[in-house]
Amino acid sequence: MLVRHLTDAQDFDAIVLVRDREARRRRDGGESLRLVLGDRTGTVPAVLDDGGADVAALCPVGAPVHVTGRYAVHARHGGRLVLRSLRAAHADEVDWTTLLDGPPRAAAQMEADLRELVSTVQNAHLQALLDAVFGPDAATWHAFRDAPAAKRYHQAYRHGLLEHSLTVAQAVSAISATFPGIDRDVAVTGALLHDIGKLEAYASHPPTIEMTDAGKLQGEISLGYYRVRRLIEDLPGFPEELAAAVLHIILSHHGLLEYGSPVVPCTREATLVHMIDNLGGRLGSFDRLEKELPDGSRWSGYDRALGGGAYFAARAA
Amino acid sequence: MLVRHLTDAQDFDAIVLVRDREARRRRDGGESLRLVLGDRTGTVPAVLDDGGADVAALCPVGAPVHVTGRYAVHARHGGRLVLRSLRAAHADEVDWTTLLDGPPRAAAQMEADLRELVSTVQNAHLQALLDAVFGPDAATWHAFRDAPAAKRYHQAYRHGLLEHSLTVAQAVSAISATFPGIDRDVAVTGALLHDIGKLEAYASHPPTIEMTDAGKLQGEISLGYYRVRRLIEDLPGFPEELAAAVLHIILSHHGLLEYGSPVVPCTREATLVHMIDNLGGRLGSFDRLEKELPDGSRWSGYDRALGGGAYFAARAA
Amino acid sequence: MLVRHLTDAQDFDAIVLVRDREARRRRDGGESLRLVLGDRTGTVPAVLDDGGADVAALCPVGAPVHVTGRYAVHARHGGRLVLRSLRAAHADEVDWTTLLDGPPRAAAQMEADLRELVSTVQNAHLQALLDAVFGPDAATWHAFRDAPAAKRYHQAYRHGLLEHSLTVAQAVSAISATFPGIDRDVAVTGALLHDIGKLEAYASHPPTIEMTDAGKLQGEISLGYYRVRRLIEDLPGFPEELAAAVLHIILSHHGLLEYGSPVVPCTREATLVHMIDNLGGRLGSFDRLEKELPDGSRWSGYDRALGGGAYFAARAA
Amino acid sequence: MLVRHLTDAQDFDAIVLVRDREARRRRDGGESLRLVLGDRTGTVPAVLDDGGADVAALCPVGAPVHVTGRYAVHARHGGRLVLRSLRAAHADEVDWTTLLDGPPRAAAQMEADLRELVSTVQNAHLQALLDAVFGPDAATWHAFRDAPAAKRYHQAYRHGLLEHSLTVAQAVSAISATFPGIDRDVAVTGALLHDIGKLEAYASHPPTIEMTDAGKLQGEISLGYYRVRRLIEDLPGFPEELAAAVLHIILSHHGLLEYGSPVVPCTREATLVHMIDNLGGRLGSFDRLEKELPDGSRWSGYDRALGGGAYFAARAA
Amino acid sequence: MLVRHLTDAQDFDAIVLVRDREARRRRDGGESLRLVLGDRTGTVPAVLDDGGADVAALCPVGAPVHVTGRYAVHARHGGRLVLRSLRAAHADEVDWTTLLDGPPRAAAQMEADLRELVSTVQNAHLQALLDAVFGPDAATWHAFRDAPAAKRYHQAYRHGLLEHSLTVAQAVSAISATFPGIDRDVAVTGALLHDIGKLEAYASHPPTIEMTDAGKLQGEISLGYYRVRRLIEDLPGFPEELAAAVLHIILSHHGLLEYGSPVVPCTREATLVHMIDNLGGRLGSFDRLEKELPDGSRWSGYDRALGGGAYFAARAA
Amino acid sequence: MLVRHLTDAQDFDAIVLVRDREARRRRDGGESLRLVLGDRTGTVPAVLDDGGADVAALCPVGAPVHVTGRYAVHARHGGRLVLRSLRAAHADEVDWTTLLDGPPRAAAQMEADLRELVSTVQNAHLQALLDAVFGPDAATWHAFRDAPAAKRYHQAYRHGLLEHSLTVAQAVSAISATFPGIDRDVAVTGALLHDIGKLEAYASHPPTIEMTDAGKLQGEISLGYYRVRRLIEDLPGFPEELAAAVLHIILSHHGLLEYGSPVVPCTREATLVHMIDNLGGRLGSFDRLEKELPDGSRWSGYDRALGGGAYFAARAA
Repeated sequence: MLVRHLTDAQDFDAIVLVRDREARRRRDGGESLRLVLGDRTGTVPAVLDDGGADVAALCPVGAPVHVTGRYAVHARHGGRLVLRSLRAAHADEVDWTTLLDGPPRAAAQMEADLRELVSTVQNAHLQALLDAVFGPDAATWHAFRDAPAAKRYHQAYRHGLLEHSLTVAQAVSAISATFPGIDRDVAVTGALLHDIGKLEAYASHPPTIEMTDAGKLQGEISLGYYRVRRLIEDLPGFPEELAAAVLHIILSHHGLLEYGSPVVPCTREATLVHMIDNLGGRLGSFDRLEKELPDGSRWSGYDRALGGGAYFAARAA
Repeated sequence: MLVRHLTDAQDFDAIVLVRDREARRRRDGGESLRLVLGDRTGTVPAVLDDGGADVAALCPVGAPVHVTGRYAVHARHGGRLVLRSLRAAHADEVDWTTLLDGPPRAAAQMEADLRELVSTVQNAHLQALLDAVFGPDAATWHAFRDAPAAKRYHQAYRHGLLEHSLTVAQAVSAISATFPGIDRDVAVTGALLHDIGKLEAYASHPPTIEMTDAGKLQGEISLGYYRVRRLIEDLPGFPEELAAAVLHIILSHHGLLEYGSPVVPCTREATLVHMIDNLGGRLGSFDRLEKELPDGSRWSGYDRALGGGAYFAARAA
Repeated sequence: MLVRHLTDAQDFDAIVLVRDREARRRRDGGESLRLVLGDRTGTVPAVLDDGGADVAALCPVGAPVHVTGRYAVHARHGGRLVLRSLRAAHADEVDWTTLLDGPPRAAAQMEADLRELVSTVQNAHLQALLDAVFGPDAATWHAFRDAPAAKRYHQAYRHGLLEHSLTVAQAVSAISATFPGIDRDVAVTGALLHDIGKLEAYASHPPTIEMTDAGKLQGEISLGYYRVRRLIEDLPGFPEELAAAVLHIILSHHGLLEYGSPVVPCTREATLVHMIDNLGGRLGSFDRLEKELPDGSRWSGYDRALGGGAYFAARAA
Repeated sequence: MLVRHLTDAQDFDAIVLVRDREARRRRDGGESLRLVLGDRTGTVPAVLDDGGADVAALCPVGAPVHVTGRYAVHARHGGRLVLRSLRAAHADEVDWTTLLDGPPRAAAQMEADLRELVSTVQNAHLQALLDAVFGPDAATWHAFRDAPAAKRYHQAYRHGLLEHSLTVAQAVSAISATFPGIDRDVAVTGALLHDIGKLEAYASHPPTIEMTDAGKLQGEISLGYYRVRRLIEDLPGFPEELAAAVLHIILSHHGLLEYGSPVVPCTREATLVHMIDNLGGRLGSFDRLEKELPDGSRWSGYDRALGGGAYFAARAA
Repeated sequence: MLVRHLTDAQDFDAIVLVRDREARRRRDGGESLRLVLGDRTGTVPAVLDDGGADVAALCPVGAPVHVTGRYAVHARHGGRLVLRSLRAAHADEVDWTTLLDGPPRAAAQMEADLRELVSTVQNAHLQALLDAVFGPDAATWHAFRDAPAAKRYHQAYRHGLLEHSLTVAQAVSAISATFPGIDRDVAVTGALLHDIGKLEAYASHPPTIEMTDAGKLQGEISLGYYRVRRLIEDLPGFPEELAAAVLHIILSHHGLLEYGSPVVPCTREATLVHMIDNLGGRLGSFDRLEKELPDGSRWSGYDRALGGGAYFAARAA
Repeated sequence: MLVRHLTDAQDFDAIVLVRDREARRRRDGGESLRLVLGDRTGTVPAVLDDGGADVAALCPVGAPVHVTGRYAVHARHGGRLVLRSLRAAHADEVDWTTLLDGPPRAAAQMEADLRELVSTVQNAHLQALLDAVFGPDAATWHAFRDAPAAKRYHQAYRHGLLEHSLTVAQAVSAISATFPGIDRDVAVTGALLHDIGKLEAYASHPPTIEMTDAGKLQGEISLGYYRVRRLIEDLPGFPEELAAAVLHIILSHHGLLEYGSPVVPCTREATLVHMIDNLGGRLGSFDRLEKELPDGSRWSGYDRALGGGAYFAARAA
């Protein structure tokens, strides 16, 4: 029983996550609780009219709760759950994979895919650099494995950064033979590292993801650039031009100055990573919008990342 | 002896193409001929001081000529060929492949690759549509095979449209498994057809490529949209939604209204074709800039398509 | 008794249209109905506190209802009708012309004006084309006569497309003698046809107007271009250059690529139609804003189409 | 014998205007004169190889000269007149109307049309204001009658301001009945006065037109606004709101802040004048481009005012 | 007890200003009052459930009231005052300086600073102009002293225009020696006068500030330009070039056409005043945002004037 | 005898710098030398008709030469020096300060001013940081002292970076008391360091200044950010928040993402440095344009940095 599939007048009995809440005092001194409840398929507003202070204490934002009630759809403002009961969920009845959005592939599988892709990089210096970031013993590996890729829009969930970086690098790898003149090792390394600054730019306290002070004051691109240039300084004999090629990918991967890159891509490899990153972001928006699409709808609402609505054609049976 | 490799004070003796010319009358009644000569590697200014009216008649723009002379470099304006002799080239001494730029792959090879890719499309309706455009007996096949992809910037040469459409479709095919939810048949079909309007929008009279009145007044996207929608009308039972999916790719492939698309991409397949088309165009600019790069240079000049200069790192031996 | 003229503390008793509604469950199990009611002069929020499920069934969005109540103005959020009663209106007590906005001129009068204007076109090919679209027996005539011109902003009502196309064509006709070099027949024909793609781009189910899938995926300009080019193909002997002149007006009438035209106007006639269409749209916004202007106000709010507020000076008695 | 009609190898013998010149010293001490010669149909480069200092004195920029020579076309840089002789023209052999571009209508006819249009303005205050500017005894009348409308682009010639202001006002008058709610008197008055600031912003010393210091430092809109507001201050009983309506048209007639209007049009009359002024300017560009179009050409070059090339279809015989 | 310092569950008893209000009818016929209350440190929403029509009459928007109640914070929508009592405040218990925001310096002190700065201007003509505007007997002096500098963003309070003009002029004075070539007298005069058009463009009825019809239809820059140019006309012997220098500062001080300046700064003095005005506006936004910052916060929300959030570092003790 | 003061028909005899040159072969086998000669006041084209290969060897670009000749002005293309003689200048007759543009203040004086300003910074950590960069023994001090501030536009000469950084810091210091809430130590430190990345981004080989590969691939802001963050890492106990405040100034000092800053200024200090840096750059453009202004001119040509022409009013005697 997932929130995206609710239909008018349907009874509801499930474990969900409290995404937001507001208490309103009633005339008689009681409180009416306005909540936003959710699972990995989306969110739904809810109201509990008999919920006083005691009940409110049970449902801090982020907590899993067990609720019962009925779903009702209004012409303009859409549907709402009218709750009959609400209690804190027991740890053993919570299935987090139904509550929090996440990647379609398991983290362990993505880690294996990452290691396989890294192993195809021939250049020893780039191997050493990738090992310093993604090696099982690297200081950053565990943080990278768990980090989200964004606050919203695409892959804004645990393992999202791993999923996004891996997908972009796989696509870069797949496509680099189609076009002439691309240094595949440099392109794949740049693709894997391009968003590494997000490690410092985002602080993930599930289910919320916030930008850090460093992220706001310095920007994720600067942070990633510093980290990789600093690592390279400690790798003996790393060629200067190779370093410049990788750093240029990180710095230019937003493609335009107005999107936060201090330089525009001026190598084939930087152009490739920028475009595939952009493509990955947009297709990720389609994934997110499709998950949120109400049953029976073909068009999402206006989406800022796409500059329009997304259309999902019916699939043949 | 190609013009890109000329160095200061070098003697020159070769067949080249007249790209432009201007006669200047001298005080003594003779004429000084200012020429632009070229081969597939670029162009070079030239001057012939004793060239009177008789010589001028030998070298209309577009004609191959045999010239001898010496190359000299000036500090500010760069190099120039000072000619000693100029005559029309004999048909049997002209090697067009050294004179005109062209694709790195042979047309026959590209045709074979195209037919192989088309054969992988499963959907029978799309097969029929592709056959109506690219089939060996299709009215448009030979024009498509020979057409250029642009007036300048990338693949502005014979077979350029075939090369560009094929490359984009191959890359779309290669990448469509990396991202979930893509209808590969629709995406590959759209990729092959996305620039079909260029058949009417450009008129190629080698070595010049001009935009036609229809191209200027109606736009290449409208022309391609009309052609494909008109063809589909004559294919019995072509599903309406499938038609909409393909036509949307053609209409939206420039990505933004300000680039001439009347609608923005709102399906995964249209997003994919737009982005890979864009990527192909930019990497094509790198190819062109690298061809024109003087020996010893690492940076091209400012390029409007890239929004900056292109950098070509030294390749390891 | 029209909603635009309501003043604080005024009693209200009228037939109005349900524009939107939302039911809110009260503590005691009853329902409070939040409604938006409207007539052709505008809309007003309303609330009915004793309206349970039975009452709600009487007022689907789009239905005419009879209501009684009192209007009350609040300092910040403006006025609201507090309803005492609500019932479905009987068919024989509904006067649709007071409920739905519409053109100031009667449709029959506009049709007569259109036929008169068409009869002034001298060129026989253009006459044949206009007859194929607007002739009383043309397949599209009745749809064109009834279609709206927009979803909002200007002439977003029945007969709006006829009104807008006719007005633009009349103004083009009136002005084409003031400036030299204009082919009046081409300009008037282009003006009458410029928005013909809206027939497929909008679906009108009064009182709602929606964009169709074809409208979103292909764009109204492409749809109109295809329709007219297809019709011309079936008109024997239609000169190619004349066809290009008319099609160019349709394609370029938004004036700029970023507004959805794949080409910019490059003939006098296309420039004229684009500018007068634009003028008609802006003046139509003034008409709409003036209708909605509360009594006593001189300034409308910010209007996106105008880029500011509209000012309506007092008229001399 | 007008310069626009010159064809390759044609002999030339005519009075033309010196538009520009440069002397180049030759090795033997003589001078080669490079000239730009023109008449109202355009300009042509010319060269006189035996022209020493004495000849140069005969042809200051702006002077009419008699020249003989031959016209020759080069492949890239177009045509050039090779002169045999050059002398100052006698006053009695100069026909200025063939030398300087000008309006298609005679100034006296335009003045009559202006007075007729002014006489149709009903409002006495506006009549008084128009009389203070355009009355035969008004201080500004003669300057207005002679002023150009621009430095280039459209109506950049004597009487151009009169022609432009009159045409815009006539079109505004013709169209103001087509759209509802327009105060025709205000709109026509605003149209006649909208560019009045150009009197101070341009200094015309035929054949050159320069922007004045006041024009550069204060802008033509500010200058016109000050002039009209100052005049109104001296007209007794001029209603404040009427003044605001006229001044708003002057201030907003560029339509957007980025085009130099400090406010955007927010009345119907200001919207109308802005759009018709804009239309008049663009159609004026077509007139200019058509005049300059070489025989046989259908497309002008790129024109900044139009955002593209202009296309001139063949006219039926 | 200022509203910015309220914390959850805190009792509240203070004189505050009614910033907005809305009455909602309850089922039982009573009224619930929703209010926005404020003092100079910010605003807070409030609700009074037993407030009927009688109470509502006590609190028109803009009135000072005495309220008691308790502050409660909700997770999503922030804090709200739940009122127990509300009555009109007695004139003698109102301290306006705690209710209305204002400049950090006293008006008398700013007036003294202004007069001191004016006295440092050496040029006699500029002295006369400044005296005609700021002299104690000048018609505009008292209006200038009291006027606000804006509707919002910065110095949107009584004496704000004096504060802003003085600060900009002081900074211009302080900095004009650091850079070579600046005419300090012209720059300081322009700085003092740059916003003088706001006298007519804003109407201040505390606590609300509205733009006037003249402000909307003509723009504050045009109004200021007219006023100063008109004053200069009456000053005998005022040099034309000096007038142009001062008027150019007023006209260009927004820096770009798209910000409402009809000309861009093209003198050093206009550049200086524009940049320091801009700087003053942005730093004023920091002041406003810091005042509104909740205790414990370091980041403001997104601010349109800054193009981002403002960050306030902790100050050392 | 400086090139800016040349007037028509003036004889010339001076040491100047070869800024550019091109040899043109003449019919008789000799060479005509086209040169651009310059001193610190500007440049002038020159021609030497009898200059063969021997002479050409004497004047590589960048070399000081002694020339004699006469200056002549042409109507369109302006003035040109016709040379009689040209020889290499002897080392002891060259006065570099008249040949190369430079700051108006001596480098030693600027160094003294810098040290004095640094000494006013109270915070010990910032003192340590400034000492690590500007201390007489710092690795970067001598490079900083000599570096230019730009390739063109403003302070594109030796000591230009010192001059620009010092001036901005002095203005920041002077103004920081006028506005409340500014941490003067942070602002002054940020002002001194804001352009430090130019040390690596530019390579100065007088008289040419080029951008380095690192400058193009990484951007001057990234390079400066890395340098300062790396230095801070080695300063024990440097507070993290203080580091963030200084680094944020460097990263944001271009003010907008589209100008290459990866983050926008969100502290008062960053706002101040950005605005004063911007002001300094624009006023520097005035200085450069005034130096190049021909005698008698009041207006410079269009300047991209200013978005218009610069106007220089006559100064009172």
